[in-house]
Amino acid sequence: MYAGLVRRALDEDLAGAGDLTTEACIPADSVSRADIVARVTGVIAGSQVARHVFAVVDPDVTVEALVEDGTEVEAGTVVMTVDGSSRSILTAERTALNLMGRMSGVATATHHLVRAIAGTGAVITDTRKTMPGLRALDKYSVRMGGGRNHRFGLYDAVMIKDNHIVAAGGITGAVEAVRSRVGHTVKIEVEVDALDQLDELLVVGADIVLLDNMDPATLRKAVERVDGRMICEASGGITPETVRAVAESGVDVISAGSITHSAPQLDVALDFRRD
Amino acid sequence: MYAGLVRRALDEDLAGAGDLTTEACIPADSVSRADIVARVTGVIAGSQVARHVFAVVDPDVTVEALVEDGTEVEAGTVVMTVDGSSRSILTAERTALNLMGRMSGVATATHHLVRAIAGTGAVITDTRKTMPGLRALDKYSVRMGGGRNHRFGLYDAVMIKDNHIVAAGGITGAVEAVRSRVGHTVKIEVEVDALDQLDELLVVGADIVLLDNMDPATLRKAVERVDGRMICEASGGITPETVRAVAESGVDVISAGSITHSAPQLDVALDFRRD
Amino acid sequence: MYAGLVRRALDEDLAGAGDLTTEACIPADSVSRADIVARVTGVIAGSQVARHVFAVVDPDVTVEALVEDGTEVEAGTVVMTVDGSSRSILTAERTALNLMGRMSGVATATHHLVRAIAGTGAVITDTRKTMPGLRALDKYSVRMGGGRNHRFGLYDAVMIKDNHIVAAGGITGAVEAVRSRVGHTVKIEVEVDALDQLDELLVVGADIVLLDNMDPATLRKAVERVDGRMICEASGGITPETVRAVAESGVDVISAGSITHSAPQLDVALDFRRD
Amino acid sequence: MYAGLVRRALDEDLAGAGDLTTEACIPADSVSRADIVARVTGVIAGSQVARHVFAVVDPDVTVEALVEDGTEVEAGTVVMTVDGSSRSILTAERTALNLMGRMSGVATATHHLVRAIAGTGAVITDTRKTMPGLRALDKYSVRMGGGRNHRFGLYDAVMIKDNHIVAAGGITGAVEAVRSRVGHTVKIEVEVDALDQLDELLVVGADIVLLDNMDPATLRKAVERVDGRMICEASGGITPETVRAVAESGVDVISAGSITHSAPQLDVALDFRRD
Amino acid sequence: MYAGLVRRALDEDLAGAGDLTTEACIPADSVSRADIVARVTGVIAGSQVARHVFAVVDPDVTVEALVEDGTEVEAGTVVMTVDGSSRSILTAERTALNLMGRMSGVATATHHLVRAIAGTGAVITDTRKTMPGLRALDKYSVRMGGGRNHRFGLYDAVMIKDNHIVAAGGITGAVEAVRSRVGHTVKIEVEVDALDQLDELLVVGADIVLLDNMDPATLRKAVERVDGRMICEASGGITPETVRAVAESGVDVISAGSITHSAPQLDVALDFRRD
Amino acid sequence: MYAGLVRRALDEDLAGAGDLTTEACIPADSVSRADIVARVTGVIAGSQVARHVFAVVDPDVTVEALVEDGTEVEAGTVVMTVDGSSRSILTAERTALNLMGRMSGVATATHHLVRAIAGTGAVITDTRKTMPGLRALDKYSVRMGGGRNHRFGLYDAVMIKDNHIVAAGGITGAVEAVRSRVGHTVKIEVEVDALDQLDELLVVGADIVLLDNMDPATLRKAVERVDGRMICEASGGITPETVRAVAESGVDVISAGSITHSAPQLDVALDFRRD
Repeated sequence: MYAGLVRRALDEDLAGAGDLTTEACIPADSVSRADIVARVTGVIAGSQVARHVFAVVDPDVTVEALVEDGTEVEAGTVVMTVDGSSRSILTAERTALNLMGRMSGVATATHHLVRAIAGTGAVITDTRKTMPGLRALDKYSVRMGGGRNHRFGLYDAVMIKDNHIVAAGGITGAVEAVRSRVGHTVKIEVEVDALDQLDELLVVGADIVLLDNMDPATLRKAVERVDGRMICEASGGITPETVRAVAESGVDVISAGSITHSAPQLDVALDFRRD
Repeated sequence: MYAGLVRRALDEDLAGAGDLTTEACIPADSVSRADIVARVTGVIAGSQVARHVFAVVDPDVTVEALVEDGTEVEAGTVVMTVDGSSRSILTAERTALNLMGRMSGVATATHHLVRAIAGTGAVITDTRKTMPGLRALDKYSVRMGGGRNHRFGLYDAVMIKDNHIVAAGGITGAVEAVRSRVGHTVKIEVEVDALDQLDELLVVGADIVLLDNMDPATLRKAVERVDGRMICEASGGITPETVRAVAESGVDVISAGSITHSAPQLDVALDFRRD
Repeated sequence: MYAGLVRRALDEDLAGAGDLTTEACIPADSVSRADIVARVTGVIAGSQVARHVFAVVDPDVTVEALVEDGTEVEAGTVVMTVDGSSRSILTAERTALNLMGRMSGVATATHHLVRAIAGTGAVITDTRKTMPGLRALDKYSVRMGGGRNHRFGLYDAVMIKDNHIVAAGGITGAVEAVRSRVGHTVKIEVEVDALDQLDELLVVGADIVLLDNMDPATLRKAVERVDGRMICEASGGITPETVRAVAESGVDVISAGSITHSAPQLDVALDFRRD
Repeated sequence: MYAGLVRRALDEDLAGAGDLTTEACIPADSVSRADIVARVTGVIAGSQVARHVFAVVDPDVTVEALVEDGTEVEAGTVVMTVDGSSRSILTAERTALNLMGRMSGVATATHHLVRAIAGTGAVITDTRKTMPGLRALDKYSVRMGGGRNHRFGLYDAVMIKDNHIVAAGGITGAVEAVRSRVGHTVKIEVEVDALDQLDELLVVGADIVLLDNMDPATLRKAVERVDGRMICEASGGITPETVRAVAESGVDVISAGSITHSAPQLDVALDFRRD
Repeated sequence: MYAGLVRRALDEDLAGAGDLTTEACIPADSVSRADIVARVTGVIAGSQVARHVFAVVDPDVTVEALVEDGTEVEAGTVVMTVDGSSRSILTAERTALNLMGRMSGVATATHHLVRAIAGTGAVITDTRKTMPGLRALDKYSVRMGGGRNHRFGLYDAVMIKDNHIVAAGGITGAVEAVRSRVGHTVKIEVEVDALDQLDELLVVGADIVLLDNMDPATLRKAVERVDGRMICEASGGITPETVRAVAESGVDVISAGSITHSAPQLDVALDFRRD
Repeated sequence: MYAGLVRRALDEDLAGAGDLTTEACIPADSVSRADIVARVTGVIAGSQVARHVFAVVDPDVTVEALVEDGTEVEAGTVVMTVDGSSRSILTAERTALNLMGRMSGVATATHHLVRAIAGTGAVITDTRKTMPGLRALDKYSVRMGGGRNHRFGLYDAVMIKDNHIVAAGGITGAVEAVRSRVGHTVKIEVEVDALDQLDELLVVGADIVLLDNMDPATLRKAVERVDGRMICEASGGITPETVRAVAESGVDVISAGSITHSAPQLDVALDFRRD
């Protein structure tokens, strides 16, 4: 799932010329033990990917994950230990940390939303606003943060959005066209941004309605009108501050682009032990 | 430079099954005109990449960039127009926006630092803490935001860091080992985090010193001791709030990981015109 | 969607050494006009793929499709004409025909089932028993034959089969485990091969039930018990001779592996015009 | 030889999202033992490829082949056993079976022809009418069914066919052009479909003559006229019913497209043991 | 045939960071006209490949080949002109020249042998001792130098060499084993390094005999003993000085590794016009 | 670093059809022991790459390197032993030898220059005139021959050459443009071919000057004028005969294209032991 990405990330760092510094100043037979440490509090994700980076650089490096993906750790926690050739550890370090920092960043951002809606019936999901080339890892990291996954791409569910409705000439026509063509395993979701659009949709029907950019009061009305006939999903302007009110409107699902497109990385670092 | 990435990003979104929604509800002969709009203020980057996404999906789509990369625009500015098959535009939309939003986000984060140090002699550079798979685009975006590029990877400059010094047994040994091995076109940079380390380095010499995590007062002392014999680079905890004091210490270069590893995306959207 | 496959298929035929025969006996400036002819009656699919083969070998070859994909033609029908360099046409010929023959073969096998159930409410779908490397083309060809597509892979719908139930320890546990984990856009299908299993499934519920290897009488009972609460899909031993009785049992969907895993190719050939 | 194909076939089934069903309903620590069973009588091929599929998904799954490739087995025979993680087995199952079913199908179709001509001096060979992307596996499967391989592609032997003769302006010119250009390791084969063409060919000479679409009586005359000066190969309309008469005409080689382009798969299935 | 190689060669030169010099010191709108000049006398090969390099870097650069591949030119001859963006020309220059210099070097080395045996009946061929990754281009260049191609690899002809005979336990056994297994389109060549081995081979028979490292007198005896029953190929220590005596021994083919494994490049350079 | 190249080199030799000879005449269970022997005196490089070739073909083959890369050996030295399946050894042989012969050839050519300047202060470096696709291996081989590496490509140092100066309109403008744009880790080198150009360069300054095609007397004057303010590099017409005089002019670095673009391979062969 991530072998190609890891290889490309290493290529970015090494190109054809390799690690000039390490090859020039570290003896080939030097061995070290290093700790990967979370410098700040957050949810860890990416242990397996980080392990894979070290394995690609040098199969003889030993990596031990001390913390399972999906665990929230405090600042200063050692999350992995790495033993083996000093050269190999130094060469793999940045690529492993960049991946783990990204993945843990997404998991942590997701966790902040999940925690904020605890006790409501809603679930947090991601969107397709993922980092180009990292979608599978981003979606995995969302699960590690306690979220669920929305569709993976344009290929695994139908989502009729604003622009489709414009191009197709209306909600009813769009839904009917889709229903007559897609296979029986595919769910149909339709985006509406006003209650009158919702009313039109309720006539033609769908599996899921995306209630876009509605305030909590409007969301509540929408949920009432739907009355269990479709899954209700809210999106738009979701932050740790606003998300609870959205969840309390009674929607089933809340999707948030920010947990993937704008998650700051979690600061993880690698420290050589001196002994 | 980005053809492989664009193809992979499209593959993530389309897999083998294509765009179910668009194929099912948009007639094959429908044509549209759409605007790509910056929803918030920021520096635009990625026009060429976005254009390439549309061209890969459909060479007959016409894309016009209204704003050059590197320009700061206000919220609401139309930065590109897209004309052609409605199906093609809808299929390419998310991939194009994800790339452009990322690139403009990095450019904007860079610009915030560059603006904060205006009038000092320092320049802002990136680090190797880039998004895996996106390094070339991240580094380009930094330039569009007014920054310069640090080394591209482990292969194009020597940087002797903390962990190298531990594994090599000291600064002097590390620098001498490197100098006797690398080619004459390679610059040598050494990281120090205290003034006594700097004193040791000044004896053995290097092209660049990385002054890591020093406060402005210490930085000023370091710059004085170096006295032009090496390029002085500061790093660690650089934010738009702290960066000016760092620059005023007299360092030549300030490198900041956050402009790539934690830049929030710039919100860009695609709107179909209704007419 | 098929660019990689076409390149690989051409590589199989050309390796590094190219087309020895054509390069040795056809003058570089010879031009020809050729017809692609269906030697037998069937449904055509693959015109665009065949066109792409010629375009990869030589962008200056002109290909005109005389028949749209999805059309049933009689034996002897000219379905495409090809004009241009004789060398290029001869080099591309076999790869283009192998692809078109395969795709038209799948479309034709599908059409035989679709025609046999005309007037019933059921639809024919494919399975995941596609030719390795050709899934997207196989699924497209099924649509051209009048069928619809089942899920594309393990990633776009849940199908709890016999072996999952064995490993999970029962239908109820398996369905509940899935429901608590997958996203809200994913449908859940469960395979049952006896009516008592169906009864267990009706309690826990699902979106689709796969009624595997049941005779028409049992299928009718199953459809009655489901009574609209799930989509009913039949599979197992579907042939043009047996399919109508299955459809008349009242099931919604009939899935058939044979239309992809055992479809004989449709005989299409390329004839140079002599004039 | 097949590593790329196996990876692509798995990608078709898994895309970025993986095996939703298995991950959701099978515990990560569940282990199983499963049998791969031939549901019908036929010749097995593809054990190594199937083993490779399991190994790619999970190197810790143990696969034991109970039957060597090239063996004819009766319906119900267990041909392989698979032990290990239930998740891994379920994820790899369809890809492994699709490959093994295809390969055994080709081997079985070949075997039907080989058996039909037992005792004549002729051998059965394949053609270039293989499944796109599967040529190496198709050719291997033909050998496992008791056939031999014709050329692998356009690159490893010269075959002057109908369309080459049209474009080159005649048999003699075509053969002479080829002979003056290709290397000394390459054999030259020429297709003729009538005895007067054969006479023209006998004057200019070749290594092999392809006697296309001739009835057994004409083939016998052709073999007599050739009288050992070229290898005689027959093709066109070869079926298990017609092949013996063709072989008894005295030809050396019989090539048949149907054993690759229209071989139905051999039904192989994977059953979990319940214990 | 060479698209992958060209892309990789450009990647070697550009990695992710591009052409620092050109981007920094040449204005984006500067256009130039440049000549590619052969600095020494030799046979030109690689015009199409060089053209492709420029096209990959910038489709708008115009390249005109003034000399056809296979032509011998004098020192100072302008063989191509290149017009377009100065940046693009400078970025593509080295890759284009490296390829053209290599290919012309191989063509020239071949030509030296071909010229030396003019008037004898022998032909010069290459071997499998080609530059890794460049086999197709090396073999093409040999043809441009007036040579013919030996087999392309291990896959398109049988060559029983010294080590095979050791491992198989003798010539006769090796030849018989091969003959019973390979297809009817494959020629069989056997290497012998002494006349008694030749005698053994003459009994069992083959299509081609490789007479390895024999002096001209021994070669003449070998040719006499073969007496037209096999093609005679000589190899070992072939240089422009020794090759004529080898050819005059009466062998049909002379194969030489040096024309690919040790050919010095032909010095070709690119000069910007100043006007 | 070389995994892709090794795979491609093996593909060139095997294509889809494999090693016809070995599969047909060597029993699957035959095992052998073979020696890789340097037939002539030279510096060995490529042991790890050769080992990798055997490992890709068959992980069970055992390879022992008897000589470290960078060692000069006499003709007849056994440099590696190879034990394992006879088939695997024969299939991998040519690819392994082609790589090792190339790499040792480059190391040996480098060594000839390095030895010739022993005792002067100068070092030998390579250029970008490497074999397309082999740059990383060529540069490694140069180091094994006692040389150092010049820049790896257009991306890791600035080199302002003749054509840049023409297109940029002069040395001063070119250098100033570069200096204002490239990052602080990049060195700037400028090519001059006359002393007056050098004088112009001394005013604007650079890190390295490339003194192109100057005779030793002119080089000496150039070195005097530079007087330690730049690293002095000489190039042009460097041979084992001329290089010492160049070195004695006082330059720091001598770069030579011939050690990569025209190095003859070192003759290494693989001999099966007979016992």
